[in-house]
Amino acid sequence: MKEYFQDHMPENVCFGCGIHNPDGLHIKSYWDGEEAVCNWESQEKFHGWANLLNGGIIATIIDCHCMCTAMAHSYKLEGRSLDSEPEYRYATGTLNIKYLKPTPNDKLLQLRATVIEVKGKKTVLECGLYSEGVKTVEAQAIAIRVFDGSQHDGGNLFK
Amino acid sequence: MKEYFQDHMPENVCFGCGIHNPDGLHIKSYWDGEEAVCNWESQEKFHGWANLLNGGIIATIIDCHCMCTAMAHSYKLEGRSLDSEPEYRYATGTLNIKYLKPTPNDKLLQLRATVIEVKGKKTVLECGLYSEGVKTVEAQAIAIRVFDGSQHDGGNLFK
Repeated sequence: MKEYFQDHMPENVCFGCGIHNPDGLHIKSYWDGEEAVCNWESQEKFHGWANLLNGGIIATIIDCHCMCTAMAHSYKLEGRSLDSEPEYRYATGTLNIKYLKPTPNDKLLQLRATVIEVKGKKTVLECGLYSEGVKTVEAQAIAIRVFDGSQHDGGNLFK
Repeated sequence: MKEYFQDHMPENVCFGCGIHNPDGLHIKSYWDGEEAVCNWESQEKFHGWANLLNGGIIATIIDCHCMCTAMAHSYKLEGRSLDSEPEYRYATGTLNIKYLKPTPNDKLLQLRATVIEVKGKKTVLECGLYSEGVKTVEAQAIAIRVFDGSQHDGGNLFK
């Protein structure tokens, strides 16, 4: 059975990846070797042009998949489980997206992300979006660790 | 009275900017001199971290605001109204976003975009996101004209 990163993020209300957002996209990410994979199905309302997935929703699933992957990778580097302490959480520093071709909105999609560099609190990732095996979008994201359990405000550095 | 670009895009079902998407974000863009401005209010469900706007929804409103601005700018360059023929429509080539600081989810937001270069079918734009006058995100987008009225398929080059 797959272990999904998002199932280990309590109190996560994020529109893209929060299990506690009833209106969210509910992406689920897991390790497939060194790659983090997310299979996701859209809904008609998320189209941009008719029958094509909206570019901003594409950005949303890439962003969340990359941030959750940076988190999971940081735990892996320390050889500990996703439920262990301290909790690490990441926010997006930069997100660079190249739209290679239109992405159908009515087919199962797959994201595949790889960590390509870790420098202190910064994790650099590359991510591709695939529709039926064809890469339609490629992206690079920089994730910044904004919470490492040392804060005294309940966990949200942004408060 | 402001003239909104999106009111001149019939049959637009886009999640970010379509007037015909009942579940969409319904951004509205207008000229303020050389800048295209969009004032937009979020909803709670679009948070990322609690009380902060989700980074992907930020990408969505920037993306749509820039594509609609590229369209409006192309009409302006030709000295004609947004209702005139031929219809020009743009899709995103690249979208590069830098998240400078957290963006509150419960305050009126403003996008300000400027066209910085036009090369044939390609329009390059810069866009900032502001919360109460503070810039929280900056982005660059490349818009590609994918429809110019010469297609015979009803307008959607992506079909």
